[in-house]
Amino acid sequence: MAKDFVTRQENYSEWYNELVVRADLAENSSVRGCMVIKPYGYAIWEKMQHSLDEMFKQTGHQNAYFPLFIPKSFFEKEAEHVEGFAKECAVVTHHRLTKSPDGKGLIPDPSAELEEALIVRPTSETIIWDTYRKWIKSYRDLPILCNQWANVVRWEMRTRMFLRTAEFLWQEGHTAHATKEEAEAEALKMMNVYADFAEKYMAMPVVRGIKSANERFAGAVETYCIEAMMQDGKALQAGTSHFLGQNFAKAFDVKFLSKENQLEYVWATSWGVSTRLMGALIMTHSDDNGLVLPPYLAPIQVVIVPIYKTEEEKQQIDEIANNVISSLNQKGVSVKYDDDEKTKPGWKFNEYEFKGVPVRITLGARDLKENKVEIFRRDICEKEIIHKDEIVAKCESLLKDIQTNLLKKASDLRQSKTRNVDTWEEFKQEIEKGGFLMCHWDGTPETEEKIKEETKATIRCIPINAPEEDGICIYSGKPSKRRVVFARNY
Amino acid sequence: MAKDFVTRQENYSEWYNELVVRADLAENSSVRGCMVIKPYGYAIWEKMQHSLDEMFKQTGHQNAYFPLFIPKSFFEKEAEHVEGFAKECAVVTHHRLTKSPDGKGLIPDPSAELEEALIVRPTSETIIWDTYRKWIKSYRDLPILCNQWANVVRWEMRTRMFLRTAEFLWQEGHTAHATKEEAEAEALKMMNVYADFAEKYMAMPVVRGIKSANERFAGAVETYCIEAMMQDGKALQAGTSHFLGQNFAKAFDVKFLSKENQLEYVWATSWGVSTRLMGALIMTHSDDNGLVLPPYLAPIQVVIVPIYKTEEEKQQIDEIANNVISSLNQKGVSVKYDDDEKTKPGWKFNEYEFKGVPVRITLGARDLKENKVEIFRRDICEKEIIHKDEIVAKCESLLKDIQTNLLKKASDLRQSKTRNVDTWEEFKQEIEKGGFLMCHWDGTPETEEKIKEETKATIRCIPINAPEEDGICIYSGKPSKRRVVFARNY
Repeated sequence: MAKDFVTRQENYSEWYNELVVRADLAENSSVRGCMVIKPYGYAIWEKMQHSLDEMFKQTGHQNAYFPLFIPKSFFEKEAEHVEGFAKECAVVTHHRLTKSPDGKGLIPDPSAELEEALIVRPTSETIIWDTYRKWIKSYRDLPILCNQWANVVRWEMRTRMFLRTAEFLWQEGHTAHATKEEAEAEALKMMNVYADFAEKYMAMPVVRGIKSANERFAGAVETYCIEAMMQDGKALQAGTSHFLGQNFAKAFDVKFLSKENQLEYVWATSWGVSTRLMGALIMTHSDDNGLVLPPYLAPIQVVIVPIYKTEEEKQQIDEIANNVISSLNQKGVSVKYDDDEKTKPGWKFNEYEFKGVPVRITLGARDLKENKVEIFRRDICEKEIIHKDEIVAKCESLLKDIQTNLLKKASDLRQSKTRNVDTWEEFKQEIEKGGFLMCHWDGTPETEEKIKEETKATIRCIPINAPEEDGICIYSGKPSKRRVVFARNY
Repeated sequence: MAKDFVTRQENYSEWYNELVVRADLAENSSVRGCMVIKPYGYAIWEKMQHSLDEMFKQTGHQNAYFPLFIPKSFFEKEAEHVEGFAKECAVVTHHRLTKSPDGKGLIPDPSAELEEALIVRPTSETIIWDTYRKWIKSYRDLPILCNQWANVVRWEMRTRMFLRTAEFLWQEGHTAHATKEEAEAEALKMMNVYADFAEKYMAMPVVRGIKSANERFAGAVETYCIEAMMQDGKALQAGTSHFLGQNFAKAFDVKFLSKENQLEYVWATSWGVSTRLMGALIMTHSDDNGLVLPPYLAPIQVVIVPIYKTEEEKQQIDEIANNVISSLNQKGVSVKYDDDEKTKPGWKFNEYEFKGVPVRITLGARDLKENKVEIFRRDICEKEIIHKDEIVAKCESLLKDIQTNLLKKASDLRQSKTRNVDTWEEFKQEIEKGGFLMCHWDGTPETEEKIKEETKATIRCIPINAPEEDGICIYSGKPSKRRVVFARNY
């Protein structure tokens, strides 16, 4: 266990907050609710971005960039959207600062008030659909498959690093289609892209599902989502993909001339994941020794620590290390050789363990006399002694193993915390233990609302692949056709 | 010449504006001064980002992310900086919208006024140095070499796409050092990184220089810059790198314990390039037929257009095209095969020519019977007939050729428009013709200011490699030691 570090058992929430700071991922800034993403944390986010961006491009999407600011009036155009997004937001009212009359500092210049206030985008449907109106004339202009990597701002009252911050980084895809079917297929496709990313790169199993009306995106007809379970049994919504119907096309008057020469409203989707995934990643794998990273997303996949006494020993170790590094680099493995003399091997061991570097190789002069080296895997914290000629092959196999093992471990945990619950009494008891409760529900927002009031649990999603099954709603006793996922959530 | 397209000769400014829109690079949005960067334009920016990011990482820098908002009071801390940046800016004063009392739309909620107004970052020195105070305790924590890719906002009165927009995308490097010498070397190094990038990737020659006091960054001790010349002879500042001395460390109280156990203020640099480079790229190479792109930055490097009558001919062409594509892809060349049947070959020729695709291959069924294909290079608009087996090799050599030729062409133009001017009378005449005037200057801000008032020309920079040479100031007649670059600028 890392020194002076609270365990998950003791205080899961504090464990998370401390981990984020001590692993150099992020810290709170002087601006309320805004965080600073530190280089080590940002390097992980960059790896996520890189893989996602590639997946988006492979599915035919292109990146573009739309304005940070949205005129206030744009939010007034889509009735549900305004309720959801135009409330707690950053409002720009002036375009100049000037010296205060009392000479003490600066004030917004009263003569530079904007005619119309601008909102810092909380999400970009409105400004993008205002743009698409100019791009779309005929079916030939469709589909439009755009994505943007951007910062957005939602003035959250209670913030937590990565999980809920006033400003966060994300990508938002916005697509326009000629038919309902095509748009629905797109929304579903992107949910699957997110799920594949979560499972393959983050080693994080997710439930693919549909949101209930209460949890749906403001302005969407249907919201698809991927839901993950954290180690404490709470759910975390890791990504959403919305079928928006013609709502935004109608609000922004975006029509196209169809093949049949009819003027029709355009069909839309939008989909996004954010730096919240960093929170999900941390809470899925990390332990009481600090961060645990799946090799695919680790900025440093292998660290090499030398131990020596003489300059001659150091030279021999350098030579071995350089060979290993060049072989691993050729295979696309990122390696750090930490021969900094300002810190001791023991300090380095702790540091890289806490930062979740998947594999550590110790090149000790004494071991090397017998051609032996120590190799350590972070996921299960086990050491092994191997022959020095095996280093490269062993690193490769370990990295694959760790990636697979982390997904399995997380899947096993999730399975152990997912169970069917059939009565309201049982539900109230079981929800206290955390995890996913698979329950029958009568399909009404009222019932969901009441369950939330009484237990703080919500419907995380209606799983895509849920088998039909006759049952009765745990709360109302009314008939139900399938089980949905109830949980408390982040 | 492209149809209905104004020439550079007729109206350079209109030519630029039209080109940006018609080549699908960007367009104005509904938000004053903010542009939409369209997918084709963004793809070029992504290529720039990718190359720059690699160069930054190779020189030891890491990416991080700092808040979008800066508390108003932060600007009050550095006296010169506030003058330069806290004037025309976007001021956030409220954190909520609410329904207007008259029921018509939304207003900033009077009960949700921020205690302290927040400024949307025009540049991030202040918020970053507020953060560095927490990161830096001892010389062991130095240097810090961070970069961030971000959007920034400066409330410009007159805007032009890419060249001057209220919101723009950029990168800003912010480094912290233990010694003055190290910080100065860093600022100089990054100017050279920018210059290398401009020349190698953008095929744009630049003058490496130092800004005069009048043109220096607000808060800097010394500003290094790269200055390019556009085809109309006007200068464009393409990147700046600032040695900030201890100004921000003093403003934000950032001290470190030196090796000698002394508390000292930290030394700083900052450096940035922005989407303005897109404007520079366009104006350096493009012509009356539209956009011209250097191969390194072209999203599509080679386009293949098939011409056929029968389905059988199409199949033969497909086969050849697929082989060419796979060979070129293996060599890292990006190829588009445009066999879209909705548009005709002639339309495609115009389209890709206007969009600046460096190389076009026409696979015509009739030519192919004789094993011939037509290959077209965009930079000089020349066609050639080659044997079909030569396609891949020819593409490779052409791409290299075009990259080299564009740099040479731009260098020749710049040289032809750069001349020594020694008298005030000559200066007033010559400045009307555009270009760089190499003149002696007495080194005072007053003289520079007067020259600007009378001719709109400013000192673009004092070239790094300017030889010492005795002379007299063109304006004041006072003695001078070297020539500086005067020009009108964007």
